[in-house]
Amino acid sequence: MKRSQYAVIGLGRFGSSLAKELIELGYEVLGIDKDEEAVDEMSEKLTHVVVADSTDEEVLRSLGIRNIDCAIVAIGDDIQSSILTAILLKDIGVKQVVAKALSELHGKVLQKIGVDRVIYPERDMGIRVAHQLVSPNLLDYIELSKDYTIAELTVPKRLCGRSLRELDTRAKYGCSVVAINKKNSVIIAPTASDTLDDQDIMVIIGTNQQIELFENEVRR
Amino acid sequence: MKRSQYAVIGLGRFGSSLAKELIELGYEVLGIDKDEEAVDEMSEKLTHVVVADSTDEEVLRSLGIRNIDCAIVAIGDDIQSSILTAILLKDIGVKQVVAKALSELHGKVLQKIGVDRVIYPERDMGIRVAHQLVSPNLLDYIELSKDYTIAELTVPKRLCGRSLRELDTRAKYGCSVVAINKKNSVIIAPTASDTLDDQDIMVIIGTNQQIELFENEVRR
Amino acid sequence: MKRSQYAVIGLGRFGSSLAKELIELGYEVLGIDKDEEAVDEMSEKLTHVVVADSTDEEVLRSLGIRNIDCAIVAIGDDIQSSILTAILLKDIGVKQVVAKALSELHGKVLQKIGVDRVIYPERDMGIRVAHQLVSPNLLDYIELSKDYTIAELTVPKRLCGRSLRELDTRAKYGCSVVAINKKNSVIIAPTASDTLDDQDIMVIIGTNQQIELFENEVRR
Amino acid sequence: MKRSQYAVIGLGRFGSSLAKELIELGYEVLGIDKDEEAVDEMSEKLTHVVVADSTDEEVLRSLGIRNIDCAIVAIGDDIQSSILTAILLKDIGVKQVVAKALSELHGKVLQKIGVDRVIYPERDMGIRVAHQLVSPNLLDYIELSKDYTIAELTVPKRLCGRSLRELDTRAKYGCSVVAINKKNSVIIAPTASDTLDDQDIMVIIGTNQQIELFENEVRR
Amino acid sequence: MKRSQYAVIGLGRFGSSLAKELIELGYEVLGIDKDEEAVDEMSEKLTHVVVADSTDEEVLRSLGIRNIDCAIVAIGDDIQSSILTAILLKDIGVKQVVAKALSELHGKVLQKIGVDRVIYPERDMGIRVAHQLVSPNLLDYIELSKDYTIAELTVPKRLCGRSLRELDTRAKYGCSVVAINKKNSVIIAPTASDTLDDQDIMVIIGTNQQIELFENEVRR
Amino acid sequence: MKRSQYAVIGLGRFGSSLAKELIELGYEVLGIDKDEEAVDEMSEKLTHVVVADSTDEEVLRSLGIRNIDCAIVAIGDDIQSSILTAILLKDIGVKQVVAKALSELHGKVLQKIGVDRVIYPERDMGIRVAHQLVSPNLLDYIELSKDYTIAELTVPKRLCGRSLRELDTRAKYGCSVVAINKKNSVIIAPTASDTLDDQDIMVIIGTNQQIELFENEVRR
Amino acid sequence: MKRSQYAVIGLGRFGSSLAKELIELGYEVLGIDKDEEAVDEMSEKLTHVVVADSTDEEVLRSLGIRNIDCAIVAIGDDIQSSILTAILLKDIGVKQVVAKALSELHGKVLQKIGVDRVIYPERDMGIRVAHQLVSPNLLDYIELSKDYTIAELTVPKRLCGRSLRELDTRAKYGCSVVAINKKNSVIIAPTASDTLDDQDIMVIIGTNQQIELFENEVRR
Amino acid sequence: MKRSQYAVIGLGRFGSSLAKELIELGYEVLGIDKDEEAVDEMSEKLTHVVVADSTDEEVLRSLGIRNIDCAIVAIGDDIQSSILTAILLKDIGVKQVVAKALSELHGKVLQKIGVDRVIYPERDMGIRVAHQLVSPNLLDYIELSKDYTIAELTVPKRLCGRSLRELDTRAKYGCSVVAINKKNSVIIAPTASDTLDDQDIMVIIGTNQQIELFENEVRR
Repeated sequence: MKRSQYAVIGLGRFGSSLAKELIELGYEVLGIDKDEEAVDEMSEKLTHVVVADSTDEEVLRSLGIRNIDCAIVAIGDDIQSSILTAILLKDIGVKQVVAKALSELHGKVLQKIGVDRVIYPERDMGIRVAHQLVSPNLLDYIELSKDYTIAELTVPKRLCGRSLRELDTRAKYGCSVVAINKKNSVIIAPTASDTLDDQDIMVIIGTNQQIELFENEVRR
Repeated sequence: MKRSQYAVIGLGRFGSSLAKELIELGYEVLGIDKDEEAVDEMSEKLTHVVVADSTDEEVLRSLGIRNIDCAIVAIGDDIQSSILTAILLKDIGVKQVVAKALSELHGKVLQKIGVDRVIYPERDMGIRVAHQLVSPNLLDYIELSKDYTIAELTVPKRLCGRSLRELDTRAKYGCSVVAINKKNSVIIAPTASDTLDDQDIMVIIGTNQQIELFENEVRR
Repeated sequence: MKRSQYAVIGLGRFGSSLAKELIELGYEVLGIDKDEEAVDEMSEKLTHVVVADSTDEEVLRSLGIRNIDCAIVAIGDDIQSSILTAILLKDIGVKQVVAKALSELHGKVLQKIGVDRVIYPERDMGIRVAHQLVSPNLLDYIELSKDYTIAELTVPKRLCGRSLRELDTRAKYGCSVVAINKKNSVIIAPTASDTLDDQDIMVIIGTNQQIELFENEVRR
Repeated sequence: MKRSQYAVIGLGRFGSSLAKELIELGYEVLGIDKDEEAVDEMSEKLTHVVVADSTDEEVLRSLGIRNIDCAIVAIGDDIQSSILTAILLKDIGVKQVVAKALSELHGKVLQKIGVDRVIYPERDMGIRVAHQLVSPNLLDYIELSKDYTIAELTVPKRLCGRSLRELDTRAKYGCSVVAINKKNSVIIAPTASDTLDDQDIMVIIGTNQQIELFENEVRR
Repeated sequence: MKRSQYAVIGLGRFGSSLAKELIELGYEVLGIDKDEEAVDEMSEKLTHVVVADSTDEEVLRSLGIRNIDCAIVAIGDDIQSSILTAILLKDIGVKQVVAKALSELHGKVLQKIGVDRVIYPERDMGIRVAHQLVSPNLLDYIELSKDYTIAELTVPKRLCGRSLRELDTRAKYGCSVVAINKKNSVIIAPTASDTLDDQDIMVIIGTNQQIELFENEVRR
Repeated sequence: MKRSQYAVIGLGRFGSSLAKELIELGYEVLGIDKDEEAVDEMSEKLTHVVVADSTDEEVLRSLGIRNIDCAIVAIGDDIQSSILTAILLKDIGVKQVVAKALSELHGKVLQKIGVDRVIYPERDMGIRVAHQLVSPNLLDYIELSKDYTIAELTVPKRLCGRSLRELDTRAKYGCSVVAINKKNSVIIAPTASDTLDDQDIMVIIGTNQQIELFENEVRR
Repeated sequence: MKRSQYAVIGLGRFGSSLAKELIELGYEVLGIDKDEEAVDEMSEKLTHVVVADSTDEEVLRSLGIRNIDCAIVAIGDDIQSSILTAILLKDIGVKQVVAKALSELHGKVLQKIGVDRVIYPERDMGIRVAHQLVSPNLLDYIELSKDYTIAELTVPKRLCGRSLRELDTRAKYGCSVVAINKKNSVIIAPTASDTLDDQDIMVIIGTNQQIELFENEVRR
Repeated sequence: MKRSQYAVIGLGRFGSSLAKELIELGYEVLGIDKDEEAVDEMSEKLTHVVVADSTDEEVLRSLGIRNIDCAIVAIGDDIQSSILTAILLKDIGVKQVVAKALSELHGKVLQKIGVDRVIYPERDMGIRVAHQLVSPNLLDYIELSKDYTIAELTVPKRLCGRSLRELDTRAKYGCSVVAINKKNSVIIAPTASDTLDDQDIMVIIGTNQQIELFENEVRR
């Protein structure tokens, strides 16, 4: 099966990180930016890079953008270029166009002109970091629904040496331990006799309130 | 128990999103930016806002920054201001100083001058979006270790009506279903007889390879 | 019957001319521009004028833009402001939104986001002036279809004193004289005995080729 | 007969549209602009293009501007260049010099220095669009005199299927139908038995009041 | 007899020097500049000063410019403002309009729009200084015609104590001594017995060649 | 005798006019400016031209400036460059350094650092033009002393046909006619019987008051 | 005896340090800068501060600069302002004018216009730091003449506990120990029995070669 | 013994002076600046010079900066570049990194990131010049401790011809004469019979008060 080809337009901090990760995941990536320095920096990290004005239809066509499976418009601060690039990509017939929005109004325009997916990386990251700040043990989390969350927590000192039976999170806080990430292995669906060690990381599932309750208890 | 007080310095897209989420989570937030327009925009959303130059020690002291529990330096593009602000905050004695880095070198400086936590929101978001792009069904994920991941996937059409027994992910792909997010409820630790419906979201745990394998299979 | 209310956003040469003509035609016009000088210049010529940033939703709402019957986005050179203003106006619910496009791509975006009518004044005027240049006697014209045109021509010296019978445009060139604009009156549907005088202006209808033929003949 | 040669100086939106239409009409056009990008864009659309400073006499002479039949100074926003270019063209002996004015004062200077024709495209287009906005059915019009206008109107739904006899515009409103533009043909000087169909366009002639009256009636 | 009133528009080095000299000569002078600092500097030296944009007709009218006998447009480097100001002054009806030209083309425009007198101070001064440089004894001169000049020369050391008879300029060089400026008096039409002293200045009249010859001889 | 060599540094309006006149007078001129365009314009008019930074000693030396007889610092608006260039020229040993001052303070500095002659072209020209404005017949003049002036006046219509005897300027006004410039010749020391014709120009000598009196009388 | 009054013009890093030290030494200091922020910073540290343009004679006079004993022109990067300020201060009659030069040429101009003392702080500091870098034990030094230096050296570990007799610098290296700075006292003209301790600092006098020799020996 | 190699980054007034002095002292110096002009100026004065961005790790490595014994960050006004360059140099492993600080905060950051020595040349020079200004005879000085100073003083006229015995500084003022710098020699540890001559320079040691007392006495 042929792997997808990506184009990342705008090689700022977000765009270049995204492009490098796609390469890491094994895909071909064409990087485009109108700033020569930004392109130079990526020249040995991406499959192809090119200095180009992405709002010029002929330029885009000459790059064979039409054959790209997914183009991500990651242009930094220039709303006009972002919008004009996105509509050009849709016009040319790129299968999937993803674009980064700088504001809600910008996002609304992107949707109206047919962008397949609008992302708000700074906004989303702000939210994610806020959660991590207020819960010092929280490493990462997935919001399953309005109420339920899966949380990845560092095991606090006080719990070291305790078994899950002693902890009894389901009875006391209502949430379940889904996995324990130990130094050299991951225990999936741990049993009551599994114990927590220093530097272990536990993954629990439950409602937001249950997890907050548990987090506050163990943090003391 | 008294709730923590936060200061967010730099109210750009990332900083203002973070500040608003902290308010949402029930904390008090002082927002600081040297740009009047940015401050005006946040004036009714945060506990306090102020137009100030955060590299001026007297200004910071007069704002009572000393009593803040955690200050986040979210300054957009000015590395110098970011560094000078961060060292001032540490000097003044703010308990926890978190700072956003624009590059690895910038991050290294921040660490050397004693910043408690350095974050790279654009870089991290780039990585996260890359993973979501290559796995169309992937909504969110937690990297447990180098090998293990918890993934939140939309249930593809083809699997609707099937029970977990039929799916038999553990035998076929090696990964386990941890939870199923149904329209109105979340099934934690589902049993073999639970079935998947349209618009259900499943949470699975396994090695990266197992999850990729499963994802590729069900996507066809 | 209540007369329509217009808002003209962008008071450059095109916008201010349009706004003044609407006033001339008896309508109420609200003029908006972010440039104070441009607004000052119009302050005594329009019903209301205001210095405002039209990409700020609250500002637009506070101006009661919702009750405007037709808003014309005549912003000069700032494609971004033009697009964001237009989508805001549609969102707010203005009945009719007309916007000036600076390029075809810009026009395409405007249409996609729901603008009711996109105009290209400079492009259209360029075309119109080109026609007038190549036909020195041509004062104005209407393109009825790809083939047919109504043309307003000055009567060349050589034809003075001639009757339409002598001219016999229908037989010789295939086009008909629809009206003759004389110094003090307009003869509609003139008869064969009507004569042409110096400084008369004639309106003829016919195919482009017929009119060009006639024009070339009489010009000699 | 040798066709005229044109030079268009200033290839902005107005100038480039004018130049392209002259080409379309079959003339040779030399395009001049001091901005390289603007010139590049036109390079394959005009007979010749050149990047040049039009206020430098030697440059103009070396381009053979003397042999041009008509030069149009369509310089965008630089009044000084517009004036200096225009006087140079007259000095060099170009037969006809047409110039775009940005303001009345600018226009007055152009006339004083001998420009053969001064045009105000943005002002004229503003007026034209104003008329079209207040009369939704009005497609185009020619102002014959202060009182008389020829108007091109879309036929409103309510009139479909009606004959001109039924309509009886001359009796009821005082204005005459000069032509009907039907899907595939144009009826010139239509008779009373001709009927109006959906999507027909009618051309009427009359005083402004008569046409406004007719327009208001049929629009209801 | 009522003395003339002058307006000087543009208070740079040339304009302010001219304005101050007019005051010195006993006239009333209104000074206008758009730069506040330039106006402040002249505020106590001229009859009236005002910070104003001289290309705005209403501003000029409100200053009563109409009653000025002579307006000098001494605007420094802005050709556009110079031209627009000059045409406005003529339009308003100022009796005499004098304008400084920065180049020949600029001067040509000024003449075409009706300026009464065009001056080229830098060009003229360049010529004057050149003459003084090549003739070290030459203090000042008037070019009477292409051939004849009146020259004001310092008397070189070698000629001190000599009478005009001994000098005999008319016989030897062909030029006549018109006046001798002595320390405390001026001798007009000196006689042959008048002698030259140290620091005397002599005024001679003759052809350029005669004067150059004389000058070269006495300089040795 | 070898003719002097000049260097003109700063080829603005004043400098280039001075340089061209020196060429006209038969001298060799080296033109220097740091602006390439200014240098290009003079390239065919002066003996040598060069684009150079005149505040760089090595550059000046490499141009052989040492052998120049007289260097004129005619730098337009940059006081710093003017001063540094002047002191360098003196240091290098240029025989005569002349410099244009923009203000009295600037002039004082130039004198202190040893410039041989400081000139104020704009100031001097302002004074000269002021005199010409207030005396419409005054073409040119030389100020002999605080009191005495030689003036070149156009002969007003009223005096045409009159002999000097009739005019009797010495008796009536106290001033003498030194020369009459007629169409084809110049009469030096005219006699009482010489008559004035239309378009003649007369040169008179006298005190300022005498000349003003005469001028006012004949002007009426 | 009345203490001197100083004025420091230019409150950059050098000027403000100098001004603060003068205050420290007990003198009155007037600080002047055209930058408001720089002045604000010094407002509570100097006797008087004022925001002013030091090239404006009236401004300087109104500040009573005439009565200042010594004015230091410490203007940062603007050679023109430095020169014009310095000549004004001399003109006004300030007793002593000291000025900082940015280059040798600048310094030469300052001297020519009569500045009493020209200083080159950056150049001098560069030289001083160079010496300290190449001699790690060198804390400070005074160049007595081309050959002789007084040097202040940290006592290296190896010499601790040794008496000056053992060290015998005069015999071995030719240089004498002038003083020893001990923790709590300074021994002037130490005797042979005085010993060196850890963290002592010694002052030696000798030729540059002798000191370098000594320094290299003890450093090993 | 191999001599140390230095790199000076930032070739402004301070950096270039330091670099040239190091060369003078016999060391090899690599000069780096991102400004081409600054580098050109030093090209023949330093061992190597290069135009480079010192915040780019690869650039620094390619210059072999690792083998440099001591790198001095003398960057003028750009705090960000100074910090990033310094941390890079430490990272790369340069043995000794010295950096110039523009403010105390900047200095604090430099210390935290591991810079071996932070210098404040402008501040230090300001202090040094202040001392020289208040003591007109003071040429240079070394602060031995808070109380003791070694001062180099010009011998005032009044003391010429006096012997040290007559002067008796130790008895009268408490300070000792360490050396006398005579025209052609330096007398170290002078005896009581040594006499002072005009233009001699004396070096004395004592407490600040003693030296001030002596200085005030002899200055009268």
